[in-house]
Amino acid sequence: MSNEFLTKGVNIAKLPSDYGSTGFKMFKGSTLNNVEIAYETWGELSINKDNVILLFTGLSPSSHAASSDINQDEGWWEYMIGPNKPIDTKKYFIVCINSLGSCFGSTSPASLNKTTNKVYGLSFPELSIEDIAKAGHDTLLTLGIDHVHTVIGPSMGGMTALAYALLYPKSLSNLIVISAAARALPFTISIRSLQRELIRSDPLWNQGDYSKQSAPLNGMKLARKLGLMSYRAANEWRERFNRARVPKNETKKMFDIEFEVENYLNHNSEKFVSMFDPNCYLYLSRAMDLFDVAEHGGTVNAGLAKIHTKKNLIVGVKSDILFPIDQQTELFEGFMKAKKNVQFEKLDSIQGHDSFLVDESNFSRVMYKFFKD
Amino acid sequence: MSNEFLTKGVNIAKLPSDYGSTGFKMFKGSTLNNVEIAYETWGELSINKDNVILLFTGLSPSSHAASSDINQDEGWWEYMIGPNKPIDTKKYFIVCINSLGSCFGSTSPASLNKTTNKVYGLSFPELSIEDIAKAGHDTLLTLGIDHVHTVIGPSMGGMTALAYALLYPKSLSNLIVISAAARALPFTISIRSLQRELIRSDPLWNQGDYSKQSAPLNGMKLARKLGLMSYRAANEWRERFNRARVPKNETKKMFDIEFEVENYLNHNSEKFVSMFDPNCYLYLSRAMDLFDVAEHGGTVNAGLAKIHTKKNLIVGVKSDILFPIDQQTELFEGFMKAKKNVQFEKLDSIQGHDSFLVDESNFSRVMYKFFKD
Repeated sequence: MSNEFLTKGVNIAKLPSDYGSTGFKMFKGSTLNNVEIAYETWGELSINKDNVILLFTGLSPSSHAASSDINQDEGWWEYMIGPNKPIDTKKYFIVCINSLGSCFGSTSPASLNKTTNKVYGLSFPELSIEDIAKAGHDTLLTLGIDHVHTVIGPSMGGMTALAYALLYPKSLSNLIVISAAARALPFTISIRSLQRELIRSDPLWNQGDYSKQSAPLNGMKLARKLGLMSYRAANEWRERFNRARVPKNETKKMFDIEFEVENYLNHNSEKFVSMFDPNCYLYLSRAMDLFDVAEHGGTVNAGLAKIHTKKNLIVGVKSDILFPIDQQTELFEGFMKAKKNVQFEKLDSIQGHDSFLVDESNFSRVMYKFFKD
Repeated sequence: MSNEFLTKGVNIAKLPSDYGSTGFKMFKGSTLNNVEIAYETWGELSINKDNVILLFTGLSPSSHAASSDINQDEGWWEYMIGPNKPIDTKKYFIVCINSLGSCFGSTSPASLNKTTNKVYGLSFPELSIEDIAKAGHDTLLTLGIDHVHTVIGPSMGGMTALAYALLYPKSLSNLIVISAAARALPFTISIRSLQRELIRSDPLWNQGDYSKQSAPLNGMKLARKLGLMSYRAANEWRERFNRARVPKNETKKMFDIEFEVENYLNHNSEKFVSMFDPNCYLYLSRAMDLFDVAEHGGTVNAGLAKIHTKKNLIVGVKSDILFPIDQQTELFEGFMKAKKNVQFEKLDSIQGHDSFLVDESNFSRVMYKFFKD
């Protein structure tokens, strides 16, 4: 396993946990050996193990969703998880999974293949969202947990939560899907396709065979900029940046940064590139394009009808251009059609797809309400 | 002048036409010598020269807006211009200008600098939208025309039309601004900034010093893909492509094209790359970021108040993400505030920013109405 991106204090589950199995069966048919999944937990598991919340992440975060005694760094959902917070660590045992295929401790294209003693790179088998869900499920089995109070996921994590409910309908009571979709649509596919092409166009990508010292960082930077543009919303940037200029700089060359918004994108993409493995990015990105609830029943509605949760919550944001509100409406209507107990929160947050990370007040309210009801 | 991109049958105006001037004064202070502007005309100039329609283009089209006896190829606005068409060649003398800085015959970064006998490249001075407007104005002067019935422009051409009305308030009667804006906002700036970075990141760009044989075509392709994504609208693609797959191909490699929308983007960007000069793209793109009506009066409204046209038409499309409808509303309200005669057409076209090129029925109707009123 590659440790360069590993966050402090994660636990590692060795999969498969099911006796007799010799490897982790992937959704598309391949077998992956020596699978390890990084995860973090908060709160205490109750004696009858009925207070588990399983959290899947978006494409880029690690399992470090919140700070803990072991790792006091702020997590990506710090405002959401903790004592008396919306996901209350006094009541629940929260497990956050680092996705199979992601570079923060779980087996991924950046891991060493113990059979060949080489980093997987593009020899890693095709990854599906269903595989990420299965890896989460099997991780819980290593903890002796076979039933979950609530599965939660934002963005790619919302797709993973849906996959979990489709694959293991009897193993969860409640489902929360945030800013996600039953499947990707062409605009989103085109954004992700271009992001992958930006990475693959960097000569240093070298068909996936790069070293840590010569990784395709410029391709990653360009892909991240495009990502940031799709994660936020035009009106938020208008409020934040408008046409503000960066300070004049005599050494500035033609086409250098001129506007604050360019500066912001540059700064934030620079930060990201050394924190994420390029091949992992490609695999996870492609998995999102390929995921389709309709593969689990013929149509999206038939798929959703197979989910047997007691209570479902769909959350969407009107300013989201990556997973537009129509897609959360589709999920809501699919659950309604199947006569499921479902709530739909259509939020006015202005921060686009990323709202769940930053619009603390709206998202806290919605989550408090769900867990109080 | 570089002729590789030249379209058939264009006319070339040699600027400046004003006696005594030794060069073309740029808006930011530089002087450009030996300026030539390519243009095409349709219809007949009336004896008292009162039937001139001046058309400015978007970033990428040439002056070939419609077919003619000299060049029978279909033009980029073929449905709009011709006998009995919305812009009626039986009534009007239409002049379409190839923008200063564009590679279709006008002086640009791709032209030979006759002083140095080298292609300008990045030694071309900073280009402003105002320079493109001035070049159009001076081109008309070479034809003995000092007053225009109507100035029309879509997209970048709409910004140029605004610049024209600001620089030469007494030389036009009517103004039509289509899918444009008083100034670029951060989301649009970020798209264009990333497009430029994609070109500049191609090693073949070589700081702007490339030959025709080794131009940064991959960078151009990537920039064009991002352009296409911003020119159309998510819902149109949903209708056209949804999740349609390309036929299976055994030689397909990991991350190759899988969806029809990827195929469409690839095909359309491949077509474009050899048709446009990369440095010209950079200059025109940057000029759009920098344009701001507020530079002509302190605020956008003060700028618009300086325009002295008899009749103005603002057209916008609700599905446009590059120049969102709010920006055409801003123009309309600015004209209203200044008590100008202004009409606003807010169209339901589903094709996003590019609607003016393809939504023939809506745009024909609006233009017929304007010229009939």
